[in-house]
Amino acid sequence: MDTLTIQTSTNKYNVFVGTKLRFKTPSFLNRNYKNVLIITDTSVEALYLDDIISSFTPETNVSSAVVPAGESSKNASNYFDLISKAIEHGLDRHSLIIALGGGMVGDLAGFVAATYMRGIDFIQIPTTILAHDSSVGGKVAINHPEGKNLIGNFYPPQAVIYDVETLHSLSDEEIRSGYAEVIKHGLISEQQFFDQIKTTNIAEKINDEVLIEHLLKGIAVKANIVERDERESNIRMFLNLGHTLGHALESEIGYGKITHGEAVAIGMLFALKVSEKVYRVSLPYNELYTWLQNNNYPLQLPNLSIDALINRMKKDKKSRDLTVQMVLLKAVGQPKVEELEDRFLVEELKEFLRELV
Amino acid sequence: MDTLTIQTSTNKYNVFVGTKLRFKTPSFLNRNYKNVLIITDTSVEALYLDDIISSFTPETNVSSAVVPAGESSKNASNYFDLISKAIEHGLDRHSLIIALGGGMVGDLAGFVAATYMRGIDFIQIPTTILAHDSSVGGKVAINHPEGKNLIGNFYPPQAVIYDVETLHSLSDEEIRSGYAEVIKHGLISEQQFFDQIKTTNIAEKINDEVLIEHLLKGIAVKANIVERDERESNIRMFLNLGHTLGHALESEIGYGKITHGEAVAIGMLFALKVSEKVYRVSLPYNELYTWLQNNNYPLQLPNLSIDALINRMKKDKKSRDLTVQMVLLKAVGQPKVEELEDRFLVEELKEFLRELV
Repeated sequence: MDTLTIQTSTNKYNVFVGTKLRFKTPSFLNRNYKNVLIITDTSVEALYLDDIISSFTPETNVSSAVVPAGESSKNASNYFDLISKAIEHGLDRHSLIIALGGGMVGDLAGFVAATYMRGIDFIQIPTTILAHDSSVGGKVAINHPEGKNLIGNFYPPQAVIYDVETLHSLSDEEIRSGYAEVIKHGLISEQQFFDQIKTTNIAEKINDEVLIEHLLKGIAVKANIVERDERESNIRMFLNLGHTLGHALESEIGYGKITHGEAVAIGMLFALKVSEKVYRVSLPYNELYTWLQNNNYPLQLPNLSIDALINRMKKDKKSRDLTVQMVLLKAVGQPKVEELEDRFLVEELKEFLRELV
Repeated sequence: MDTLTIQTSTNKYNVFVGTKLRFKTPSFLNRNYKNVLIITDTSVEALYLDDIISSFTPETNVSSAVVPAGESSKNASNYFDLISKAIEHGLDRHSLIIALGGGMVGDLAGFVAATYMRGIDFIQIPTTILAHDSSVGGKVAINHPEGKNLIGNFYPPQAVIYDVETLHSLSDEEIRSGYAEVIKHGLISEQQFFDQIKTTNIAEKINDEVLIEHLLKGIAVKANIVERDERESNIRMFLNLGHTLGHALESEIGYGKITHGEAVAIGMLFALKVSEKVYRVSLPYNELYTWLQNNNYPLQLPNLSIDALINRMKKDKKSRDLTVQMVLLKAVGQPKVEELEDRFLVEELKEFLRELV
């Protein structure tokens, strides 16, 4: 088992990465909680909920709440139901909430923990590759009909328990979605990490050791940035490489029709293309394109309205005064945030989409 | 004008206390905000909203949202509507929310600011005496049908602008409610402050200078405690003197039928009574009783179920593992948190209520 320590402005917590960790959950906790509520979704419930529950001794009062799987569960109505469940189960300020699942569950359960009685302890037990990204950094949120993650907090967990065995139950689509963020961590950190991922075929079963190494490196990149800028006032924005267009694509195409990571993958291609133009440099656009193609990422898009996409990009939380901000790369490992003129963006996006369609 | 500086774990902000401050709101801000949303209630809107709006130059985009006056507005439905309004008005991460009103508006607008796009700036412009307490300390929240303030955050404002002129529009009831917290700050800090309040007749118009002095002293007591224990892990609990029974009375009698401060006043009497018994000391119970009576505090209670009250006291957020915790006084200025046995509490409460009824 490997351990990474994350320092935040308010606490310090460990990320444990290894196999079979879910069977000894209490051993990773700093305190003896009397009352624990596990929040999970319908997919994960069937696979791992019992493993977590039975890792506790009978002295601990463990209850669970299950929401339907899928991003649409990250809504206000489920949020309030979960708060009500926490009250019903008698949780007080000294209780623990466990987020068992992927990014959706982590965000939703994390926001419940962040706001229940003004904040109680929570831990993350991620069950997706994508969650190597979302479970570190303390961002928790629910969606608003007008946009993703518009309601939330910065609220770090007490621990992240990453049992990579749980990743074997992921679909190909989920593996692709998660690896897009691993690639992103490569692109914004160092050539070597990016090269290493490029040699991995994720369309076939990934070796546990390789997976653990990639996850640890990805988490380290993220942790390093988040420690230096928790509240996203400057360098944390680098983590949004590929996300400005990615989020816009998710909304325009429709959540569920393209995964988050798949949309971000296309967003990263676009960011590389724009970076080459803006900085007059050569970047591994073709290498990334080829790797994505070889690993079955969907790279053909339906016909989309350029104006609609640009409007979505402007509504992005990171945008300031309605000009689009995007993370670009001066080189692999050298991200930079740029404000882009509408006219330039329209032309670039047109050309990019024409090439993809 | 007087200025007090409050240090929190994440920022530092000023509390400005004086007259006519509302006419120069922008001069108290650290930044030039392009987009401002003022959240207020129907009572305050008619009196002071225009003063705040016209204190900004036309370059600032100022919009407003109004909720019905009264504690019941601090609910989930208004909270979501306000988030939607913030989106509608185009607020981004660099915008400002102004909470204009009493504690209800401060809590509700503060929670909107704390969670909108994971937290944007907000300032408090309190218009009640009670808000001298709630506007300092960073607690924001909404109510759940099962209890007050069950959903919230610790989220400090960027500034508090206290224009005491706005306090002249308060009803006698609201003045009594606010002064209960001033008294509390006296009781937990020093005899001299308590004695000073005791000589003030709040049933008649209070002199502005006296009012400013009491508010400044009260805020200083609160700020001192909050700075040392922001997240209520130990000494911040002292601020709950009178609140354990107070909250229970509010719920049992019904919100709106007794004000928060009036309920807390009775709660403080009970805390003094219990303290005298537990510590075998003499405390100014009679002096407090007489002052409350002379200033028209309601001290006669309807018939209430002791069991129901004790159950409410147990549900208090501060309670741990279902024994009642109460703040007691070893002497004026020497608060201490004690866990109390059910049986003892039942007897004390019976006797206390018999004396009051």
